[in-house]
Amino acid sequence: MPGPRKVLIIGGGFAGLACAQKLANDSRFAVTLIDRRNHHLFQPLLYQVATASLAAPDIARSLRGVLASAANVTVLLDDITTIDCDTHTARSADNTYPFDSLVLATGAHTSFFGKDEWASHTVGLKSLEDAQTIRRRVLTGLERAECSADPDERRRLMTVVIVGGGPTGVELAGAFSDLVRRALKADFRRINPADLRILLVQSGDRILKPFQPDLSDYARQRLEDLGVEICLEARVDEVESGRVHLDTGRWIEAATIIWAAGVQASDLTACLPGERDRGGRLLVSPALSIPGHPDLFAAGDIVSVPGPDGEPVPGLAPAASQMGRHIAAVLREDQRLATTRYARRKSEFRAAFRYRDKGIMAIIGKNCAVAQAGRLKMRGILAWAAWLFIHLLFLIGFRNKLAVLLQWGWAYLVDKPGARVITGHDDKVA
Amino acid sequence: MPGPRKVLIIGGGFAGLACAQKLANDSRFAVTLIDRRNHHLFQPLLYQVATASLAAPDIARSLRGVLASAANVTVLLDDITTIDCDTHTARSADNTYPFDSLVLATGAHTSFFGKDEWASHTVGLKSLEDAQTIRRRVLTGLERAECSADPDERRRLMTVVIVGGGPTGVELAGAFSDLVRRALKADFRRINPADLRILLVQSGDRILKPFQPDLSDYARQRLEDLGVEICLEARVDEVESGRVHLDTGRWIEAATIIWAAGVQASDLTACLPGERDRGGRLLVSPALSIPGHPDLFAAGDIVSVPGPDGEPVPGLAPAASQMGRHIAAVLREDQRLATTRYARRKSEFRAAFRYRDKGIMAIIGKNCAVAQAGRLKMRGILAWAAWLFIHLLFLIGFRNKLAVLLQWGWAYLVDKPGARVITGHDDKVA
Repeated sequence: MPGPRKVLIIGGGFAGLACAQKLANDSRFAVTLIDRRNHHLFQPLLYQVATASLAAPDIARSLRGVLASAANVTVLLDDITTIDCDTHTARSADNTYPFDSLVLATGAHTSFFGKDEWASHTVGLKSLEDAQTIRRRVLTGLERAECSADPDERRRLMTVVIVGGGPTGVELAGAFSDLVRRALKADFRRINPADLRILLVQSGDRILKPFQPDLSDYARQRLEDLGVEICLEARVDEVESGRVHLDTGRWIEAATIIWAAGVQASDLTACLPGERDRGGRLLVSPALSIPGHPDLFAAGDIVSVPGPDGEPVPGLAPAASQMGRHIAAVLREDQRLATTRYARRKSEFRAAFRYRDKGIMAIIGKNCAVAQAGRLKMRGILAWAAWLFIHLLFLIGFRNKLAVLLQWGWAYLVDKPGARVITGHDDKVA
Repeated sequence: MPGPRKVLIIGGGFAGLACAQKLANDSRFAVTLIDRRNHHLFQPLLYQVATASLAAPDIARSLRGVLASAANVTVLLDDITTIDCDTHTARSADNTYPFDSLVLATGAHTSFFGKDEWASHTVGLKSLEDAQTIRRRVLTGLERAECSADPDERRRLMTVVIVGGGPTGVELAGAFSDLVRRALKADFRRINPADLRILLVQSGDRILKPFQPDLSDYARQRLEDLGVEICLEARVDEVESGRVHLDTGRWIEAATIIWAAGVQASDLTACLPGERDRGGRLLVSPALSIPGHPDLFAAGDIVSVPGPDGEPVPGLAPAASQMGRHIAAVLREDQRLATTRYARRKSEFRAAFRYRDKGIMAIIGKNCAVAQAGRLKMRGILAWAAWLFIHLLFLIGFRNKLAVLLQWGWAYLVDKPGARVITGHDDKVA
């Protein structure tokens, strides 16, 4: 009798973790989950760490902790650098990991559309470190403005440019506005923190493009009420230290430049065969494996797979989780068939992934959000309540839910977010 | 009529903050509080951030937030580099701050007894960054041990040396033991986290020297029950990257070396006139000013002043707070007398600082602590409960109290501390 099937999952985000959880304690599998980080990160709340509402551990949970009771799952902290699909091995600097089946779920990173030199002048929002860097830059900017007597310098220190008008950009802009207009209201003596200039730069003709146009308009109006300047149909064509240039012809001096404009599939996708789309995402079969390679699976933000409406499945947490679970189901069904005469033709019998669209939502500020699911549209306080409820519901770990609920309740009642703490050093704050 | 008296407080720790709070909304004073950090740090709980029990923002609070309602207090984030006592000005790289009265409360930093090159191989425990570095090193050590096949390397990765057997060292040792023996019990597949070797190196013949000998013995026994190796009468005489040498003649290989052996008064004390003790602490008058300089005050860990028993007042948070409040009282009394004929002789009429010793305590592990106050001694679960209660009581900010209470309750019930999240990068983990 053969040993358990060696499943190697690379990446502990929504897709990788869901897959591991679905294979937990199934003794037909020996699962190894490898991530560069020791924690699963609840990215939908990452902007709240950046805007000083939540502490980093509130939205992260140790991967080992989540999978402690899964006896057949080994969690390793390692940085896989290459995958050899012929010999079925993955390699890091120090170790080699053989596998029978691979699940690549390494997600996406910030993309600068080929201008990688812009990375050093801007901050993305993909990791806890990014979030802490954004928090540090904005809070330090205000601190320096309070100390400065030069009005031009103050203005620069109190300017935040957010490039990208998707949900991340909108949520950051709204939360920073809430921060300076509510929480920090009484804190400064020389500057008015509400003078913080927040610019949201969007290349298209409206923000929140995945939403219906009327919800986009609503979000734009609400953000403008909150004091956010929205630059539509404007592209960033140059970034230098402390300033950006828009193709509409003006330079903007800003101490904080946040890049929320685009993502690109993780570099490890290059190790896998097959075609990919413009964003580097792998074109996978309906069962989420690489065509012609039934043992190589990919899930989450690194794959391009059509949804029920023919459009590619969006890069959202629920989609990634669904893909992870689907791959686990396929692997289990493969094992069931392995002892039958269908074994060799397993890929033909595999179920196709079917994306269940639960809708999309974005929070704009206190008491205000937009949401749509199918033909249902919501906005204002009802959408806001739904946003809070759903994010709490899906946040991993009871302790995290409780901690976040406490912080939100507190912030709502007294308008004082609790995480206004600058940590770390940042040479780049000029 | 003259304007308000310009009081410059440097340092927002226990002493500086208490002084500012006591002068709040007294219109006779224009107070400026300057700190290099934007937050007040509750240092007695710092070891819990290092041992992954609490998140950084749980034990820190924005100085601006604390002093928001104090209209006569301006909080500035700046790094004072020099003080000119003749012209009554303090200077940072960019700014000059004139003052009528100075309150220096910049605290102590880790001291290596002249071996400053050891700093790069060890971590102290004075700031949130230090705590996060310790957490990262220990957790990363375990992660690398799980990946490693070499038993010597595993042993090195799973060794933590704590230099210094005072309360900080004891609390760290006990908390790390709890972490690996309880919280991480089920998390690893290849290593047993309880094999983490924790060495506590103490130069004297007992740990917790400020305590009664029987409490020291009790603490030692309890730590040994928790698996901590205690090396008494051992001095570190060499530190290299990844190993320390004891004067008892052996090298210890360790991925994490924590330095909790000594502190030294902040470098800014050198700008003030007068004598100082061996630790660089200023010898101040009974009213906490520099002898002969009635407008230069100093408080907290940078001063040496005799307590009621003739011994110097210890470097503890309550002592620092008491000093800060005393200076504020002296300043207010000076102002009251300023309009009388005693004005010129004010320093003669000043009240002497009287340290009210509330006792000392140290936590050893779950359900176990030692405490003494005067002739009262406590140990075990009662002392532990008292420790928790008192630390919650004095933790600044209702939100922080609530957050810490929640985390402690959760950790007590399910043995799973919530902050097991590695953030930041650390090139020095070999």
